[in-house]
Amino acid sequence: MNLLLINPNISESVSALIRAEAVLSASPGTSIEVLTAPFGVAYIETRMEAVIGAYATLQLAAEHHARHDAVIVAAFGDPGLAGLREVLPCPVTGLSEAALLSACLLGGRFSIVAISHRITAWYRETVDHLGLGSRLASIRSLTSPLADIGSVQTDQGERLVALADACVDQDGADVIVLAGAPLAGLARQLKDRLRVPVVDGVSSAVRQAEGLVRMAPAKARAGSFGAPPVKPNAGLSCELQALLARGGGN
Amino acid sequence: MNLLLINPNISESVSALIRAEAVLSASPGTSIEVLTAPFGVAYIETRMEAVIGAYATLQLAAEHHARHDAVIVAAFGDPGLAGLREVLPCPVTGLSEAALLSACLLGGRFSIVAISHRITAWYRETVDHLGLGSRLASIRSLTSPLADIGSVQTDQGERLVALADACVDQDGADVIVLAGAPLAGLARQLKDRLRVPVVDGVSSAVRQAEGLVRMAPAKARAGSFGAPPVKPNAGLSCELQALLARGGGN
Amino acid sequence: MNLLLINPNISESVSALIRAEAVLSASPGTSIEVLTAPFGVAYIETRMEAVIGAYATLQLAAEHHARHDAVIVAAFGDPGLAGLREVLPCPVTGLSEAALLSACLLGGRFSIVAISHRITAWYRETVDHLGLGSRLASIRSLTSPLADIGSVQTDQGERLVALADACVDQDGADVIVLAGAPLAGLARQLKDRLRVPVVDGVSSAVRQAEGLVRMAPAKARAGSFGAPPVKPNAGLSCELQALLARGGGN
Amino acid sequence: MNLLLINPNISESVSALIRAEAVLSASPGTSIEVLTAPFGVAYIETRMEAVIGAYATLQLAAEHHARHDAVIVAAFGDPGLAGLREVLPCPVTGLSEAALLSACLLGGRFSIVAISHRITAWYRETVDHLGLGSRLASIRSLTSPLADIGSVQTDQGERLVALADACVDQDGADVIVLAGAPLAGLARQLKDRLRVPVVDGVSSAVRQAEGLVRMAPAKARAGSFGAPPVKPNAGLSCELQALLARGGGN
Amino acid sequence: MNLLLINPNISESVSALIRAEAVLSASPGTSIEVLTAPFGVAYIETRMEAVIGAYATLQLAAEHHARHDAVIVAAFGDPGLAGLREVLPCPVTGLSEAALLSACLLGGRFSIVAISHRITAWYRETVDHLGLGSRLASIRSLTSPLADIGSVQTDQGERLVALADACVDQDGADVIVLAGAPLAGLARQLKDRLRVPVVDGVSSAVRQAEGLVRMAPAKARAGSFGAPPVKPNAGLSCELQALLARGGGN
Amino acid sequence: MNLLLINPNISESVSALIRAEAVLSASPGTSIEVLTAPFGVAYIETRMEAVIGAYATLQLAAEHHARHDAVIVAAFGDPGLAGLREVLPCPVTGLSEAALLSACLLGGRFSIVAISHRITAWYRETVDHLGLGSRLASIRSLTSPLADIGSVQTDQGERLVALADACVDQDGADVIVLAGAPLAGLARQLKDRLRVPVVDGVSSAVRQAEGLVRMAPAKARAGSFGAPPVKPNAGLSCELQALLARGGGN
Repeated sequence: MNLLLINPNISESVSALIRAEAVLSASPGTSIEVLTAPFGVAYIETRMEAVIGAYATLQLAAEHHARHDAVIVAAFGDPGLAGLREVLPCPVTGLSEAALLSACLLGGRFSIVAISHRITAWYRETVDHLGLGSRLASIRSLTSPLADIGSVQTDQGERLVALADACVDQDGADVIVLAGAPLAGLARQLKDRLRVPVVDGVSSAVRQAEGLVRMAPAKARAGSFGAPPVKPNAGLSCELQALLARGGGN
Repeated sequence: MNLLLINPNISESVSALIRAEAVLSASPGTSIEVLTAPFGVAYIETRMEAVIGAYATLQLAAEHHARHDAVIVAAFGDPGLAGLREVLPCPVTGLSEAALLSACLLGGRFSIVAISHRITAWYRETVDHLGLGSRLASIRSLTSPLADIGSVQTDQGERLVALADACVDQDGADVIVLAGAPLAGLARQLKDRLRVPVVDGVSSAVRQAEGLVRMAPAKARAGSFGAPPVKPNAGLSCELQALLARGGGN
Repeated sequence: MNLLLINPNISESVSALIRAEAVLSASPGTSIEVLTAPFGVAYIETRMEAVIGAYATLQLAAEHHARHDAVIVAAFGDPGLAGLREVLPCPVTGLSEAALLSACLLGGRFSIVAISHRITAWYRETVDHLGLGSRLASIRSLTSPLADIGSVQTDQGERLVALADACVDQDGADVIVLAGAPLAGLARQLKDRLRVPVVDGVSSAVRQAEGLVRMAPAKARAGSFGAPPVKPNAGLSCELQALLARGGGN
Repeated sequence: MNLLLINPNISESVSALIRAEAVLSASPGTSIEVLTAPFGVAYIETRMEAVIGAYATLQLAAEHHARHDAVIVAAFGDPGLAGLREVLPCPVTGLSEAALLSACLLGGRFSIVAISHRITAWYRETVDHLGLGSRLASIRSLTSPLADIGSVQTDQGERLVALADACVDQDGADVIVLAGAPLAGLARQLKDRLRVPVVDGVSSAVRQAEGLVRMAPAKARAGSFGAPPVKPNAGLSCELQALLARGGGN
Repeated sequence: MNLLLINPNISESVSALIRAEAVLSASPGTSIEVLTAPFGVAYIETRMEAVIGAYATLQLAAEHHARHDAVIVAAFGDPGLAGLREVLPCPVTGLSEAALLSACLLGGRFSIVAISHRITAWYRETVDHLGLGSRLASIRSLTSPLADIGSVQTDQGERLVALADACVDQDGADVIVLAGAPLAGLARQLKDRLRVPVVDGVSSAVRQAEGLVRMAPAKARAGSFGAPPVKPNAGLSCELQALLARGGGN
Repeated sequence: MNLLLINPNISESVSALIRAEAVLSASPGTSIEVLTAPFGVAYIETRMEAVIGAYATLQLAAEHHARHDAVIVAAFGDPGLAGLREVLPCPVTGLSEAALLSACLLGGRFSIVAISHRITAWYRETVDHLGLGSRLASIRSLTSPLADIGSVQTDQGERLVALADACVDQDGADVIVLAGAPLAGLARQLKDRLRVPVVDGVSSAVRQAEGLVRMAPAKARAGSFGAPPVKPNAGLSCELQALLARGGGN
């Protein structure tokens, strides 16, 4: 089984974290490829940056999906995920979707621990968009500017533990979701220090993607996730045009 | 990996369907055990029957969980699931929870196709309890009394397809969930006839349980899914007493 | 008029509190009987304990309802209530349902004061299940372990008043609900000390049950609260079998 | 016990229906007084008419409450109810509030059967304002203009039964609420013809008011239902001024 | 274009604030008239006071609307607004409605800064009634009694800024709504001191009303905002009778 | 005042419709510029097409906003709107946002009439994202494939009227929103034929944008709509880089 993880951002250091955790989480026989966005920003904190990341993700997916069994949008907030689900022939998921649904299997309400205050509004909208608002206990975040996106785990590890503890003790969290690709793999280290289950986005996405590949669902030919109806287009890459040319839907 | 599926009902014919689909869905190396409730009703359609099924499930889980890596409540509505999640040391899921969360990975809104009209109120409450009401497109059901719970798939196959089609065309469903253990395995047969992805409860639960076992989450020592605080009890089986004696939580 | 109150727990001391308040609250001519669960735990704080309490309640109700005009599930969280409403020929209510609906008659938003932190998650789910989430101002609770469930009122009286005051001053509560059968009767004592109306579960349930008996509603022969459709069962007590044999519903 | 029912409308024929049902529903020893608004419209169907009815109700309550133990706003939609609850020293309820909360004691979801199509929007807002939207199965209504508001029960009896049946069979109603004071008493006649419990506003309000009087809740001295803070006023009746002069709240 | 602003309260000093801001906000060619309620209270903080204010507003609108192109209910909470929208032939809005919808154009979530603690419950209900609860970040308020309703802006200016800052920093507000006609015009002064956009009710209402007049929507002849069906009435002013005599709706 | 309308699609015929209605709706002294996306599809019906449209809109806005007082995203669904609001120094709105908020000023619940069935899922998500789900009565749409996106108004005019009538008569709509830029201007023609107010996206957006420009709100320097924090980026156009270089936010 071949899984493609697309980092919608330009940070190679974050792609390396994603790759490392994905490889550790994958079943034997699953191969992992991680691509980094050729354009965009270092990490997505805002709706505007998500617009850029979504387009970069769409572009990369159009170019590279063919040789993979499933695609993962490897940033919290899942920029472009629903659009990809319409056009790709294979299953797709994203770090947020997979992490939050996995959290639902472990308890009643989850909290999200995030890497910056600014990012929390976008995460809240992501949770609402997934229809999971009633299961969100809280979102807590680091507040000081990040020195280095690639080393936030080591730089801020103790602070992240304290945030998770506050989610449990003050907000009623049954599960902690460590959010943001820069935290990929941290759950593995903190598992025994936290008093409730802790969920990692990358490993959740890898496991859910593997499950979807084994499920082998039919591609929608109706409903709102069938391929977009064919219509004129202009100025798009050949690969995007090819995806749109499949058409379908209703 | 050993998975225990507990049928909260007394129908051996349904347990056979559950076992067959579970075995087909399991990864190589996963062994499947299915237990049938020693007391209760033929199939759960009502809240009252769910009270009985929940207690039977709790009893069986207390007796048999020790030699398994995860436990699955093998009836829609998941009677007893949240209680088991508090007390068992291993991961737990149920057919509804696993199916609905899997459906969320395949589209925006799902519809449930059910085997009797009476059962739909309980299913609606199950969806609401999971906090997924905003993703429910509709629930449709068979309306004539079931001749035989074990043969409903063959007796009512065409009618079930028609119901699913109505969910897509009239209710806006992106995904169909075939609900109720008596429909276990039917999704596999209908996959190519339906125009949207179709989700089976047993296979979803097996896959999600496998994912949870591989995730190996820590057992909650805090939050509302830690073990119940130790307190006096009376009249319970030795196995239930043993579960309660672990205590913990807060 | 004969009212049956079923304590789903094994604590005779709590049954005594329930009985005392029920007798004080009942109209002239109403007789009160309180039964204590023969199996289960000392008091329900968790979903797992609620599964046991629900089954014990169902059993007692099946055995004893015949000579009563209404049945009351005498624990907050109302374990088994909806199931009983399906099968019993007489009206049924529970402490939570009756208290929360009574609170709605006294103000806009209510707060719940509870006897342990652990119990609050289950109470929140109870409120949500009743569809009253938008009227919940807050849940506050004692945090130290209970020395004696039967004497919590005297042991913790001042602390409970302070919690109620915080609900009014900080959470916007218009009404206070003292939750949990171990607090039965306390509202009567605190009525003049609190600055907003205070609601007791037992007295609310007795009054609502009396109102229902005088209303004399027809037993549902349709909808989701008609009796469960008749189907095979096994391993149940004669009394439960008798309830199920009535059948009906759709 | 003395109960005051205020018909916010000018229809004496409706007041007679209200009085008749109230007397039938009251406990021995409860005396019933019904007042009819001296100004306003024949029956409230719209938000504008409710503004008038609320003011008329407030005026009548200010003038007459002193010699009663509880006050009932005797129109569906409960015009002025929340305002009265702030200022009156005694308990207050209304037909909608009492009927809908009573319906919640009898099943999961209720439907409302109404006397005109136009009135349904206002009823829906009433349900939402009470926070009970999740328990509303549907609102169905007569569609032809009413020949005579005082005889709608006899003129349209069969049509009302058909509407209630549709609520049960097509909308999933567990309980029927016959809404609007012009239908006062009809539930009593239809009780055996409908297959689910049926709720009447007047009798529900009388019973809930009796329960509140027996509960004898303290008047709020804090929260949003304490008396309005004292402030200058002008142009109000002596009785309204007297209510406002009590002041309090925060 | 002629706009009529109706102050539902008796405070001429507040009417003067309303007039001043309305004139500053109006486009060239728009004339402003402000009327003060001849009866009622100094300012509306409670549901009971809103009942009075709504009736006074209805009365004034009936008498004076004819020579205006739009009517504005010039108090937060918009007493009587929906009723006026049914009966007046011209567009109508209110300070809350206009301010909150304007706030929605400037960010994701808004906070309301209010002039008294008591008023906050009514404001929360206003937000909920508008269906905008998911966009409300918080309501914060002054807590000390107001010395003079006409000078609250100067008396409490710094405190109001501190409240707004807390909404941004602690509650996640993207926009601040300064609520209550006594704060009319303050947004203009604080605009550069606050770090997020700040919305004023009067200016929002003037601009939205101008937009509606230019839009020139047809008066509803169907739906729930058509004129109320004609029916008997009594005891109403000639002007109210004239409004009701237009009839229509369904 | 200069308004920039950005058509996120490549259809010049639709841009012409947008321009015509915008010019008719604008106040004297307002100049209108309409830009058409240089890349993308003919019209957006799906989430995937919205990803492309959002990026094209962002690009055009970055290049052209400087000489305008406000920017309008001129497609229903408002692709990229929230992102633009973060980074542009001037006010921004979109056809959906402006139309739905304008509809809220005209009645309680609105229905959307759309040009294709496929588009309705995306519109529903747009309504939910705006937090206006409780005010949505229904979405109805044309079902046959569009012969020509530029002539849908004349080709399908009668069918669109019939859909609007069904929204009023069957779904309880108080207001009709004609959705989709290809319907720009149709409301003007249908105004007298429909029995409830009808709202046009382009004219709503022009009026709301004019109101925002006159309001002259401060650009957010805090909250989630401040400019994104400065961070490394790559591969972006100079104009996008310039927007991102402003930084700010928190």
